[in-house]
Amino acid sequence: MRGVPRYTPAMTAPPRHQPPGGARRPRQALLYDPSIPTPSHAERALTLLAAAPDGMLSTLTSDPAGYPYGSLVLFGLLQRDPVFLISGLAAHTRNLKADQRASLLVRESGPKNPLALGRVTLVGRCEPVADPSEARAVFLGRNPSAKFYADFGDFSYWRLRPERIRYIGGFGRMSWPDLDGWRAAQPDPIAPHAQGILAHMNDDHAAALRLYCEAFSESGPVEQATMTGVDRYGFEMSAQTADGPRPIRVAFRQTATTPGEVRSALVTLVAAARERLGVTSTG
Amino acid sequence: MRGVPRYTPAMTAPPRHQPPGGARRPRQALLYDPSIPTPSHAERALTLLAAAPDGMLSTLTSDPAGYPYGSLVLFGLLQRDPVFLISGLAAHTRNLKADQRASLLVRESGPKNPLALGRVTLVGRCEPVADPSEARAVFLGRNPSAKFYADFGDFSYWRLRPERIRYIGGFGRMSWPDLDGWRAAQPDPIAPHAQGILAHMNDDHAAALRLYCEAFSESGPVEQATMTGVDRYGFEMSAQTADGPRPIRVAFRQTATTPGEVRSALVTLVAAARERLGVTSTG
Repeated sequence: MRGVPRYTPAMTAPPRHQPPGGARRPRQALLYDPSIPTPSHAERALTLLAAAPDGMLSTLTSDPAGYPYGSLVLFGLLQRDPVFLISGLAAHTRNLKADQRASLLVRESGPKNPLALGRVTLVGRCEPVADPSEARAVFLGRNPSAKFYADFGDFSYWRLRPERIRYIGGFGRMSWPDLDGWRAAQPDPIAPHAQGILAHMNDDHAAALRLYCEAFSESGPVEQATMTGVDRYGFEMSAQTADGPRPIRVAFRQTATTPGEVRSALVTLVAAARERLGVTSTG
Repeated sequence: MRGVPRYTPAMTAPPRHQPPGGARRPRQALLYDPSIPTPSHAERALTLLAAAPDGMLSTLTSDPAGYPYGSLVLFGLLQRDPVFLISGLAAHTRNLKADQRASLLVRESGPKNPLALGRVTLVGRCEPVADPSEARAVFLGRNPSAKFYADFGDFSYWRLRPERIRYIGGFGRMSWPDLDGWRAAQPDPIAPHAQGILAHMNDDHAAALRLYCEAFSESGPVEQATMTGVDRYGFEMSAQTADGPRPIRVAFRQTATTPGEVRSALVTLVAAARERLGVTSTG
Protein backbone atom coordinates (compact mmCIF):
# COMPACT_ATOMS: atom_id res chain seq x y z
CA MET A 1 0.00 0.00 0.00
CA ARG A 2 1.28 3.43 -0.90
CA GLY A 3 1.50 5.97 1.89
CA VAL A 4 -0.77 8.90 2.33
CA PRO A 5 0.66 11.73 0.23
CA ARG A 6 2.29 14.77 1.68
CA TYR A 7 0.16 17.69 0.75
CA THR A 8 -0.22 21.38 1.21
CA PRO A 9 -3.57 23.10 1.69
CA ALA A 10 -5.41 23.67 -1.56
CA MET A 11 -5.69 27.34 -1.01
CA THR A 12 -3.20 29.80 0.36
CA ALA A 13 -4.69 33.03 1.58
CA PRO A 14 -3.80 35.70 -0.99
CA PRO A 15 -4.11 39.42 -0.31
CA ARG A 16 -7.78 40.36 -0.54
CA HIS A 17 -9.36 42.47 -3.25
CA GLN A 18 -11.13 45.70 -2.34
CA PRO A 19 -14.81 45.70 -3.30
CA PRO A 20 -16.39 49.16 -3.47
CA GLY A 21 -17.86 50.60 -0.28
CA GLY A 22 -15.65 48.37 1.83
CA ALA A 23 -18.38 45.73 1.93
CA ARG A 24 -16.92 42.26 1.65
CA ARG A 25 -19.25 39.40 1.12
CA PRO A 26 -18.45 36.92 3.87
CA ARG A 27 -16.91 33.73 2.51
CA GLN A 28 -19.11 30.70 2.88
CA ALA A 29 -17.62 28.02 5.11
CA LEU A 30 -16.27 25.05 3.18
CA LEU A 31 -18.54 22.01 3.24
CA TYR A 32 -15.53 19.67 3.52
CA ASP A 33 -12.34 19.35 5.50
CA PRO A 34 -9.78 21.51 3.61
CA SER A 35 -6.92 19.50 5.08
CA ILE A 36 -7.74 16.36 3.11
CA PRO A 37 -5.10 15.32 0.59
CA THR A 38 -5.04 17.85 -2.27
CA PRO A 39 -2.46 18.51 -4.99
CA SER A 40 0.13 21.09 -3.98
CA HIS A 41 0.58 24.15 -6.13
CA ALA A 42 3.95 22.78 -7.28
CA GLU A 43 2.22 19.59 -8.39
CA ARG A 44 -0.53 21.50 -10.15
CA ALA A 45 2.01 23.70 -11.90
CA LEU A 46 4.08 20.74 -13.06
CA THR A 47 0.96 18.89 -14.22
CA LEU A 48 -0.03 21.92 -16.25
CA LEU A 49 3.46 22.19 -17.73
CA ALA A 50 3.42 18.50 -18.64
CA ALA A 51 0.22 18.91 -20.66
CA ALA A 52 0.55 22.30 -22.36
CA PRO A 53 1.07 22.17 -26.15
CA ASP A 54 3.14 25.36 -26.19
CA GLY A 55 4.17 28.33 -24.09
CA MET A 56 5.07 31.98 -24.21
CA LEU A 57 8.71 32.83 -23.74
CA SER A 58 9.65 36.23 -22.37
CA THR A 59 13.14 37.50 -23.14
CA LEU A 60 14.88 40.89 -23.02
CA THR A 61 15.34 42.93 -26.20
CA SER A 62 18.74 44.33 -27.11
CA ASP A 63 17.51 47.22 -29.28
CA PRO A 64 15.87 49.04 -27.66
CA ALA A 65 17.61 47.61 -24.62
CA GLY A 66 15.88 45.82 -21.82
CA TYR A 67 12.26 45.64 -22.93
CA PRO A 68 10.52 42.35 -22.13
CA TYR A 69 9.59 40.55 -25.35
CA GLY A 70 7.00 37.77 -25.59
CA SER A 71 7.11 35.05 -28.25
CA LEU A 72 5.46 31.72 -28.90
CA VAL A 73 7.52 28.53 -28.39
CA LEU A 74 7.19 24.78 -28.34
CA PHE A 75 9.03 23.03 -25.50
CA GLY A 76 9.94 19.70 -23.96
CA LEU A 77 10.70 18.91 -20.32
CA LEU A 78 14.09 17.73 -19.09
CA GLN A 79 13.90 16.99 -15.36
CA ARG A 80 11.16 19.62 -15.05
CA ASP A 81 13.19 22.24 -16.97
CA PRO A 82 11.70 23.47 -20.25
CA VAL A 83 13.94 22.92 -23.28
CA PHE A 84 13.44 24.77 -26.54
CA LEU A 85 14.61 24.20 -30.11
CA ILE A 86 14.96 27.71 -31.52
CA SER A 87 16.58 29.35 -34.53
CA GLY A 88 19.45 31.80 -34.28
CA LEU A 89 17.47 33.89 -36.78
CA ALA A 90 14.62 34.41 -34.30
CA ALA A 91 14.34 37.49 -32.09
CA HIS A 92 14.04 35.48 -28.85
CA THR A 93 17.28 33.62 -29.60
CA ARG A 94 19.18 36.82 -30.35
CA ASN A 95 17.78 38.20 -27.11
CA LEU A 96 18.94 35.16 -25.11
CA LYS A 97 22.43 35.35 -26.60
CA ALA A 98 22.71 38.87 -25.16
CA ASP A 99 20.92 38.21 -21.83
CA GLN A 100 19.87 34.81 -20.50
CA ARG A 101 17.15 36.13 -18.17
CA ALA A 102 13.84 34.71 -19.32
CA SER A 103 10.50 33.27 -18.28
CA LEU A 104 8.08 30.75 -19.71
CA LEU A 105 4.32 31.09 -19.24
CA VAL A 106 2.15 28.07 -19.92
CA ARG A 107 -1.58 27.93 -19.52
CA GLU A 108 -4.42 25.53 -19.18
CA SER A 109 -6.82 25.57 -22.11
CA GLY A 110 -10.55 25.25 -21.85
CA PRO A 111 -13.86 26.91 -22.54
CA LYS A 112 -13.98 28.88 -19.27
CA ASN A 113 -13.03 32.53 -18.74
CA PRO A 114 -9.25 32.44 -19.35
CA LEU A 115 -8.61 34.05 -15.96
CA ALA A 116 -10.43 31.16 -14.24
CA LEU A 117 -8.00 28.64 -15.74
CA GLY A 118 -4.57 27.67 -14.43
CA ARG A 119 -1.24 29.05 -15.58
CA VAL A 120 2.35 28.92 -14.43
CA THR A 121 5.33 31.17 -15.03
CA LEU A 122 8.86 29.81 -14.64
CA VAL A 123 11.38 32.63 -14.17
CA GLY A 124 15.09 31.94 -14.53
CA ARG A 125 18.00 31.79 -16.93
CA CYS A 126 17.85 30.13 -20.31
CA GLU A 127 21.15 28.71 -21.48
CA PRO A 128 22.38 26.83 -24.54
CA VAL A 129 22.44 23.05 -24.07
CA ALA A 130 26.00 21.73 -24.42
CA ASP A 131 25.16 18.09 -25.19
CA PRO A 132 21.81 18.14 -26.96
CA SER A 133 21.07 14.39 -27.07
CA GLU A 134 18.73 14.34 -24.06
CA ALA A 135 17.16 17.69 -24.91
CA ARG A 136 16.59 16.51 -28.47
CA ALA A 137 14.92 13.32 -27.28
CA VAL A 138 12.46 15.03 -24.94
CA PHE A 139 11.79 17.91 -27.31
CA LEU A 140 11.13 15.80 -30.42
CA GLY A 141 9.24 13.20 -28.38
CA ARG A 142 6.81 15.94 -27.50
CA ASN A 143 6.91 17.87 -30.78
CA PRO A 144 7.42 15.32 -33.57
CA SER A 145 6.53 17.86 -36.25
CA ALA A 146 9.74 19.74 -35.37
CA LYS A 147 11.80 16.91 -36.90
CA PHE A 148 11.67 18.63 -40.25
CA TYR A 149 13.79 21.54 -39.02
CA ALA A 150 15.60 19.92 -36.06
CA ASP A 151 18.78 19.40 -38.07
CA PHE A 152 18.91 22.83 -39.64
CA GLY A 153 22.20 24.52 -38.82
CA ASP A 154 20.61 27.65 -37.39
CA PHE A 155 18.59 25.75 -34.75
CA SER A 156 19.87 24.79 -31.32
CA TYR A 157 18.58 23.65 -27.93
CA TRP A 158 18.20 25.96 -24.97
CA ARG A 159 17.24 25.08 -21.39
CA LEU A 160 15.41 27.26 -18.88
CA ARG A 161 16.55 26.74 -15.29
CA PRO A 162 13.78 28.10 -13.05
CA GLU A 163 14.74 30.30 -10.12
CA ARG A 164 11.21 31.38 -9.20
CA ILE A 165 7.88 29.77 -9.99
CA ARG A 166 4.52 31.51 -10.07
CA TYR A 167 1.38 29.38 -10.01
CA ILE A 168 -2.10 30.84 -10.53
CA GLY A 169 -4.88 28.29 -10.36
CA GLY A 170 -7.68 30.72 -11.19
CA PHE A 171 -9.32 33.59 -9.33
CA GLY A 172 -7.76 33.94 -5.87
CA ARG A 173 -5.70 30.73 -5.96
CA MET A 174 -2.03 31.55 -6.39
CA SER A 175 1.38 31.20 -4.80
CA TRP A 176 5.12 31.12 -5.42
CA PRO A 177 5.86 27.39 -4.87
CA ASP A 178 9.33 26.85 -3.43
CA LEU A 179 12.00 25.16 -5.51
CA ASP A 180 12.38 22.20 -3.15
CA GLY A 181 8.73 21.35 -3.55
CA TRP A 182 9.04 21.85 -7.28
CA ARG A 183 11.99 19.45 -7.53
CA ALA A 184 10.09 16.81 -5.53
CA ALA A 185 6.86 17.19 -7.53
CA GLN A 186 5.61 14.70 -10.10
CA PRO A 187 2.96 15.51 -12.70
CA ASP A 188 -0.41 14.04 -11.87
CA PRO A 189 -0.68 10.63 -13.58
CA ILE A 190 -4.47 10.92 -13.69
CA ALA A 191 -4.50 14.26 -15.56
CA PRO A 192 -4.37 12.76 -19.08
CA HIS A 193 -7.44 10.64 -18.20
CA ALA A 194 -9.39 13.22 -16.23
CA GLN A 195 -11.76 14.35 -19.01
CA GLY A 196 -12.79 10.76 -19.70
CA ILE A 197 -13.36 10.01 -16.02
CA LEU A 198 -15.46 13.16 -15.56
CA ALA A 199 -17.59 12.39 -18.62
CA HIS A 200 -18.16 8.82 -17.46
CA MET A 201 -19.08 9.75 -13.90
CA ASN A 202 -21.35 12.63 -14.92
CA ASP A 203 -23.08 10.62 -17.63
CA ASP A 204 -23.55 7.35 -15.79
CA HIS A 205 -23.17 7.79 -12.02
CA ALA A 206 -25.35 10.68 -10.90
CA ALA A 207 -26.59 8.75 -7.85
CA ALA A 208 -23.05 7.95 -6.69
CA LEU A 209 -22.05 11.62 -6.93
CA ARG A 210 -24.97 12.66 -4.72
CA LEU A 211 -24.05 9.91 -2.24
CA TYR A 212 -20.42 11.11 -2.01
CA CYS A 213 -21.58 14.63 -1.19
CA GLU A 214 -24.11 13.61 1.42
CA ALA A 215 -21.81 11.07 3.12
CA PHE A 216 -18.47 12.87 3.06
CA SER A 217 -19.37 16.54 3.39
CA GLU A 218 -21.65 18.92 5.26
CA SER A 219 -23.77 19.41 2.15
CA GLY A 220 -27.02 18.05 3.54
CA PRO A 221 -29.42 16.75 0.90
CA VAL A 222 -28.06 17.24 -2.61
CA GLU A 223 -30.35 17.53 -5.58
CA GLN A 224 -27.65 17.02 -8.16
CA ALA A 225 -23.84 16.91 -8.24
CA THR A 226 -21.36 17.26 -11.10
CA MET A 227 -17.79 15.97 -10.94
CA THR A 228 -15.59 18.91 -11.94
CA GLY A 229 -12.08 17.58 -11.33
CA VAL A 230 -10.14 14.46 -10.49
CA ASP A 231 -6.51 13.95 -9.53
CA ARG A 232 -4.36 11.27 -7.91
CA TYR A 233 -5.55 12.23 -4.39
CA GLY A 234 -9.28 12.63 -4.90
CA PHE A 235 -11.94 14.48 -6.80
CA GLU A 236 -14.07 17.61 -6.78
CA MET A 237 -17.75 18.16 -7.35
CA SER A 238 -20.15 21.04 -7.70
CA ALA A 239 -23.16 20.12 -5.58
CA GLN A 240 -26.59 21.65 -5.88
CA THR A 241 -27.45 22.20 -2.19
CA ALA A 242 -30.27 23.99 -0.41
CA ASP A 243 -27.93 27.04 -0.36
CA GLY A 244 -27.14 26.84 -4.09
CA PRO A 245 -24.14 25.34 -5.88
CA ARG A 246 -21.18 24.59 -3.59
CA PRO A 247 -17.77 22.97 -4.18
CA ILE A 248 -17.02 19.66 -2.46
CA ARG A 249 -13.82 17.68 -2.45
CA VAL A 250 -13.55 14.01 -1.48
CA ALA A 251 -10.20 12.25 -0.97
CA PHE A 252 -9.36 8.75 -2.11
CA ARG A 253 -8.22 6.43 0.67
CA GLN A 254 -4.93 5.98 -1.11
CA THR A 255 -3.21 7.70 -4.00
CA ALA A 256 -4.37 6.49 -7.42
CA THR A 257 -1.83 6.26 -10.21
CA THR A 258 -3.93 4.77 -13.01
CA PRO A 259 -7.52 5.17 -14.25
CA GLY A 260 -8.15 1.60 -12.97
CA GLU A 261 -7.09 2.64 -9.47
CA VAL A 262 -9.38 5.67 -9.68
CA ARG A 263 -12.22 3.36 -10.62
CA SER A 264 -11.51 1.05 -7.65
CA ALA A 265 -11.25 4.02 -5.30
CA LEU A 266 -14.60 5.39 -6.50
CA VAL A 267 -16.29 2.00 -6.07
CA THR A 268 -14.85 1.67 -2.56
CA LEU A 269 -16.14 5.14 -1.67
CA VAL A 270 -19.66 4.34 -2.87
CA ALA A 271 -19.78 1.38 -0.49
CA ALA A 272 -18.36 3.48 2.34
CA ALA A 273 -20.88 6.26 1.63
CA ARG A 274 -23.79 3.83 1.73
CA GLU A 275 -22.53 2.42 5.00
CA ARG A 276 -22.09 5.84 6.54
CA LEU A 277 -25.55 6.98 5.43
CA GLY A 278 -27.20 3.69 6.35
CA VAL A 279 -28.35 3.26 2.74
CA THR A 280 -29.02 -0.28 1.60
CA SER A 281 -27.02 -1.18 -1.47
CA THR A 282 -29.15 -1.67 -4.53
CA GLY A 283 -26.40 -3.77 -6.10
CA MET B 1 -16.72 52.88 -55.75
CA ARG B 2 -13.96 52.42 -53.25
CA GLY B 3 -10.43 52.75 -54.52
CA VAL B 4 -7.97 49.92 -54.89
CA PRO B 5 -6.31 49.39 -51.50
CA ARG B 6 -2.74 50.29 -50.83
CA TYR B 7 -0.95 47.10 -50.00
CA THR B 8 2.43 45.65 -49.26
CA PRO B 9 3.63 42.35 -50.67
CA ALA B 10 2.30 39.37 -48.79
CA MET B 11 5.70 38.01 -48.03
CA THR B 12 8.86 39.81 -47.04
CA ALA B 13 11.99 37.77 -47.56
CA PRO B 14 13.19 36.69 -44.12
CA PRO B 15 16.72 35.40 -43.48
CA ARG B 16 16.88 31.82 -44.70
CA HIS B 17 17.17 28.72 -42.53
CA GLN B 18 20.13 26.39 -42.96
CA PRO B 19 19.10 22.85 -43.92
CA PRO B 20 21.77 20.20 -43.27
CA GLY B 21 24.32 19.57 -46.02
CA GLY B 22 23.72 23.01 -47.47
CA ALA B 23 21.03 21.58 -49.77
CA ARG B 24 18.13 23.95 -50.09
CA ARG B 25 15.03 22.74 -51.79
CA PRO B 26 14.32 25.25 -54.54
CA ARG B 27 11.15 27.21 -53.87
CA GLN B 28 8.37 26.53 -56.32
CA ALA B 29 7.36 29.55 -58.36
CA LEU B 30 4.06 31.06 -57.26
CA LEU B 31 1.11 30.21 -59.47
CA TYR B 32 -0.33 33.72 -59.10
CA ASP B 33 0.86 37.30 -59.27
CA PRO B 34 2.22 38.09 -55.78
CA SER B 35 1.61 41.82 -56.31
CA ILE B 36 -2.19 41.49 -56.25
CA PRO B 37 -3.89 43.24 -53.32
CA THR B 38 -3.06 41.40 -50.11
CA PRO B 39 -3.37 42.44 -46.44
CA SER B 40 -0.27 44.15 -45.10
CA HIS B 41 1.43 42.70 -42.04
CA ALA B 42 0.22 45.69 -40.02
CA GLU B 43 -3.34 44.90 -41.09
CA ARG B 44 -2.93 41.22 -40.32
CA ALA B 45 -1.47 42.03 -36.89
CA LEU B 46 -4.28 44.44 -36.04
CA THR B 47 -6.91 41.97 -37.25
CA LEU B 48 -5.39 39.31 -35.01
CA LEU B 49 -5.33 41.73 -32.06
CA ALA B 50 -8.97 42.66 -32.67
CA ALA B 51 -10.05 39.02 -32.42
CA ALA B 52 -7.85 37.51 -29.68
CA PRO B 53 -9.68 36.67 -26.42
CA ASP B 54 -6.59 37.33 -24.26
CA GLY B 55 -2.86 37.89 -24.39
CA MET B 56 0.42 37.44 -22.58
CA LEU B 57 1.82 40.50 -20.91
CA SER B 58 5.57 40.59 -20.37
CA THR B 59 6.84 42.88 -17.64
CA LEU B 60 10.10 43.28 -15.69
CA THR B 61 10.42 41.82 -12.20
CA SER B 62 11.70 43.95 -9.35
CA ASP B 63 12.97 41.11 -7.16
CA PRO B 64 15.08 39.63 -8.57
CA ALA B 65 15.56 42.72 -10.71
CA GLY B 66 15.07 42.83 -14.44
CA TYR B 67 13.84 39.36 -15.34
CA PRO B 68 11.10 39.29 -17.98
CA TYR B 69 7.89 37.96 -16.47
CA GLY B 70 4.98 36.57 -18.48
CA SER B 71 1.38 36.69 -17.25
CA LEU B 72 -2.06 36.17 -18.72
CA VAL B 73 -4.27 39.24 -19.29
CA LEU B 74 -7.54 40.28 -20.84
CA PHE B 75 -7.45 43.48 -22.87
CA GLY B 76 -9.46 45.98 -24.86
CA LEU B 77 -8.31 48.21 -27.71
CA LEU B 78 -8.25 52.00 -27.50
CA GLN B 79 -7.15 53.45 -30.86
CA ARG B 80 -5.14 50.26 -31.48
CA ASP B 81 -3.47 50.44 -28.03
CA PRO B 82 -4.18 47.54 -25.67
CA VAL B 83 -5.74 48.58 -22.36
CA PHE B 84 -5.76 46.35 -19.30
CA LEU B 85 -7.77 46.27 -16.08
CA ILE B 86 -5.36 44.87 -13.52
CA SER B 87 -5.11 44.63 -9.76
CA GLY B 88 -2.43 46.35 -7.70
CA LEU B 89 -2.10 43.01 -5.89
CA ALA B 90 -0.91 41.25 -9.05
CA ALA B 91 2.75 40.73 -9.87
CA HIS B 92 2.51 42.33 -13.33
CA THR B 93 1.03 45.53 -11.86
CA ARG B 94 3.74 45.78 -9.22
CA ASN B 95 6.27 45.26 -12.00
CA LEU B 96 4.75 48.04 -14.14
CA LYS B 97 4.74 50.45 -11.22
CA ALA B 98 8.52 50.00 -10.98
CA ASP B 99 9.26 49.87 -14.74
CA GLN B 100 6.77 50.60 -17.53
CA ARG B 101 8.60 48.64 -20.24
CA ALA B 102 6.32 45.83 -21.38
CA SER B 103 5.07 43.82 -24.32
CA LEU B 104 1.85 42.07 -25.21
CA LEU B 105 1.80 38.86 -27.24
CA VAL B 106 -1.47 37.77 -28.80
CA ARG B 107 -1.97 34.73 -30.96
CA GLU B 108 -4.32 33.22 -33.44
CA SER B 109 -6.01 30.08 -32.21
CA GLY B 110 -6.74 27.05 -34.31
CA PRO B 111 -6.17 23.35 -34.74
CA LYS B 112 -2.91 23.72 -36.71
CA ASN B 113 0.64 23.47 -35.40
CA PRO B 114 0.85 26.56 -33.13
CA LEU B 115 3.95 27.78 -34.97
CA ALA B 116 1.99 27.80 -38.27
CA LEU B 117 -0.54 30.26 -36.81
CA GLY B 118 -0.23 34.04 -36.56
CA ARG B 119 0.93 36.05 -33.57
CA VAL B 120 1.90 39.62 -32.84
CA THR B 121 4.02 41.22 -30.14
CA LEU B 122 3.55 44.90 -29.26
CA VAL B 123 6.59 46.27 -27.43
CA GLY B 124 6.39 49.58 -25.62
CA ARG B 125 5.57 51.30 -22.36
CA CYS B 126 2.51 50.55 -20.30
CA GLU B 127 1.21 53.49 -18.30
CA PRO B 128 -1.68 54.12 -15.93
CA VAL B 129 -4.73 55.64 -17.62
CA ALA B 130 -5.49 59.06 -16.12
CA ASP B 131 -9.15 59.30 -17.20
CA PRO B 132 -10.45 55.76 -17.35
CA SER B 133 -13.86 56.35 -18.96
CA GLU B 134 -12.83 55.44 -22.51
CA ALA B 135 -10.57 52.61 -21.36
CA ARG B 136 -13.36 51.26 -19.21
CA ALA B 137 -15.83 51.33 -22.10
CA VAL B 138 -13.60 49.45 -24.54
CA PHE B 139 -12.33 47.02 -21.92
CA LEU B 140 -15.72 46.07 -20.50
CA GLY B 141 -17.28 46.05 -23.97
CA ARG B 142 -14.87 43.31 -24.86
CA ASN B 143 -14.74 41.57 -21.47
CA PRO B 144 -18.19 41.90 -19.89
CA SER B 145 -17.39 39.28 -17.24
CA ALA B 146 -14.87 41.73 -15.76
CA LYS B 147 -17.74 43.93 -14.58
CA PHE B 148 -17.87 42.04 -11.32
CA TYR B 149 -14.44 43.31 -10.26
CA ALA B 150 -14.17 46.48 -12.36
CA ASP B 151 -15.08 48.70 -9.41
CA PHE B 152 -12.84 47.07 -6.84
CA GLY B 153 -10.48 49.64 -5.34
CA ASP B 154 -7.34 47.67 -6.15
CA PHE B 155 -8.05 47.54 -9.91
CA SER B 156 -7.05 50.20 -12.40
CA TYR B 157 -6.63 50.69 -16.14
CA TRP B 158 -3.26 50.63 -17.90
CA ARG B 159 -2.49 51.38 -21.54
CA LEU B 160 0.31 49.94 -23.65
CA ARG B 161 1.74 52.39 -26.19
CA PRO B 162 3.55 50.32 -28.81
CA GLU B 163 7.00 51.42 -29.93
CA ARG B 164 7.83 48.31 -31.95
CA ILE B 165 5.55 45.70 -33.48
CA ARG B 166 6.53 42.16 -34.39
CA TYR B 167 4.25 40.20 -36.69
CA ILE B 168 4.74 36.49 -37.39
CA GLY B 169 2.18 35.02 -39.77
CA GLY B 170 3.47 31.45 -39.56
CA PHE B 171 6.58 29.69 -40.81
CA GLY B 172 8.77 32.17 -42.71
CA ARG B 173 6.25 35.03 -42.82
CA MET B 174 7.30 37.78 -40.45
CA SER B 175 8.29 41.42 -40.23
CA TRP B 176 8.48 44.47 -37.98
CA PRO B 177 5.63 46.60 -39.40
CA ASP B 178 6.38 50.31 -39.11
CA LEU B 179 4.34 52.48 -36.77
CA ASP B 180 2.94 54.68 -39.55
CA GLY B 181 1.46 51.65 -41.27
CA TRP B 182 0.17 50.44 -37.93
CA ARG B 183 -1.58 53.74 -37.19
CA ALA B 184 -3.21 53.72 -40.65
CA ALA B 185 -4.32 50.07 -40.44
CA GLN B 186 -7.88 48.92 -39.86
CA PRO B 187 -8.80 45.42 -38.72
CA ASP B 188 -10.20 43.29 -41.53
CA PRO B 189 -14.01 43.65 -41.49
CA ILE B 190 -14.37 40.22 -43.11
CA ALA B 191 -12.38 38.35 -40.43
CA PRO B 192 -15.34 37.74 -38.07
CA HIS B 193 -17.21 36.12 -40.98
CA ALA B 194 -14.33 34.23 -42.57
CA GLN B 195 -15.06 30.80 -41.09
CA GLY B 196 -18.64 30.91 -42.28
CA ILE B 197 -17.64 32.01 -45.78
CA LEU B 198 -15.02 29.25 -46.04
CA ALA B 199 -17.46 26.59 -44.87
CA HIS B 200 -20.12 27.75 -47.33
CA MET B 201 -17.75 27.91 -50.31
CA ASN B 202 -16.08 24.58 -49.55
CA ASP B 203 -19.38 22.80 -48.91
CA ASP B 204 -21.42 24.19 -51.78
CA HIS B 205 -19.19 25.73 -54.46
CA ALA B 206 -16.49 23.23 -55.38
CA ALA B 207 -16.90 23.91 -59.12
CA ALA B 208 -16.49 27.68 -58.65
CA LEU B 209 -13.28 27.17 -56.68
CA ARG B 210 -11.78 25.07 -59.47
CA LEU B 211 -12.84 27.72 -62.01
CA TYR B 212 -11.14 30.51 -60.03
CA CYS B 213 -7.88 28.58 -59.99
CA GLU B 214 -7.92 27.68 -63.65
CA ALA B 215 -8.95 31.16 -64.82
CA PHE B 216 -6.90 33.40 -62.54
CA SER B 217 -3.68 31.46 -61.91
CA GLU B 218 -1.10 29.31 -63.66
CA SER B 219 -2.48 26.19 -62.00
CA GLY B 220 -3.50 24.33 -65.16
CA PRO B 221 -6.26 21.78 -64.63
CA VAL B 222 -7.28 21.53 -60.99
CA GLU B 223 -8.79 18.37 -59.59
CA GLN B 224 -10.04 19.99 -56.41
CA ALA B 225 -9.59 23.31 -54.57
CA THR B 226 -10.26 24.32 -50.97
CA MET B 227 -10.75 27.91 -49.87
CA THR B 228 -8.35 28.43 -46.95
CA GLY B 229 -8.66 32.14 -46.25
CA VAL B 230 -10.66 35.22 -47.13
CA ASP B 231 -10.09 38.89 -46.35
CA ARG B 232 -11.33 42.25 -47.60
CA TYR B 233 -9.00 42.16 -50.63
CA GLY B 234 -9.45 38.60 -51.86
CA PHE B 235 -9.18 34.97 -50.94
CA GLU B 236 -6.79 32.03 -50.85
CA MET B 237 -7.16 28.46 -51.95
CA SER B 238 -5.18 25.24 -51.78
CA ALA B 239 -5.46 23.72 -55.25
CA GLN B 240 -4.78 20.10 -56.09
CA THR B 241 -2.70 20.47 -59.26
CA ALA B 242 -0.73 18.03 -61.40
CA ASP B 243 2.29 19.01 -59.24
CA GLY B 244 0.46 18.43 -55.94
CA PRO B 245 -1.23 20.93 -53.61
CA ARG B 246 -0.32 24.58 -54.31
CA PRO B 247 -1.49 27.88 -52.79
CA ILE B 248 -3.41 30.30 -55.00
CA ARG B 249 -4.63 33.79 -54.19
CA VAL B 250 -7.29 35.64 -56.15
CA ALA B 251 -8.06 39.34 -55.60
CA PHE B 252 -11.51 40.90 -55.53
CA ARG B 253 -12.02 43.69 -58.05
CA GLN B 254 -12.77 46.07 -55.21
CA THR B 255 -12.40 45.93 -51.46
CA ALA B 256 -15.24 44.10 -49.68
CA THR B 257 -16.37 45.39 -46.32
CA THR B 258 -19.31 43.08 -45.59
CA PRO B 259 -20.11 39.39 -46.16
CA GLY B 260 -22.68 40.55 -48.75
CA GLU B 261 -19.96 42.36 -50.69
CA VAL B 262 -17.78 39.24 -50.55
CA ARG B 263 -20.67 37.25 -51.97
CA SER B 264 -21.14 39.73 -54.83
CA ALA B 265 -17.41 39.77 -55.53
CA LEU B 266 -17.31 35.96 -55.68
CA VAL B 267 -20.30 35.84 -58.04
CA THR B 268 -18.69 38.45 -60.30
CA LEU B 269 -15.47 36.45 -60.38
CA VAL B 270 -17.29 33.25 -61.40
CA ALA B 271 -18.74 35.04 -64.42
CA ALA B 272 -15.33 36.54 -65.26
CA ALA B 273 -13.67 33.13 -64.90
CA ARG B 274 -16.17 31.51 -67.24
CA GLU B 275 -15.65 34.23 -69.79
CA ARG B 276 -11.88 33.97 -69.59
CA LEU B 277 -11.97 30.18 -69.94
CA GLY B 278 -14.65 30.24 -72.63
CA VAL B 279 -16.89 28.07 -70.44
CA THR B 280 -20.59 28.30 -71.10
CA SER B 281 -22.53 29.28 -68.02
CA THR B 282 -24.71 26.49 -66.72
CA GLY B 283 -26.85 29.03 -64.88
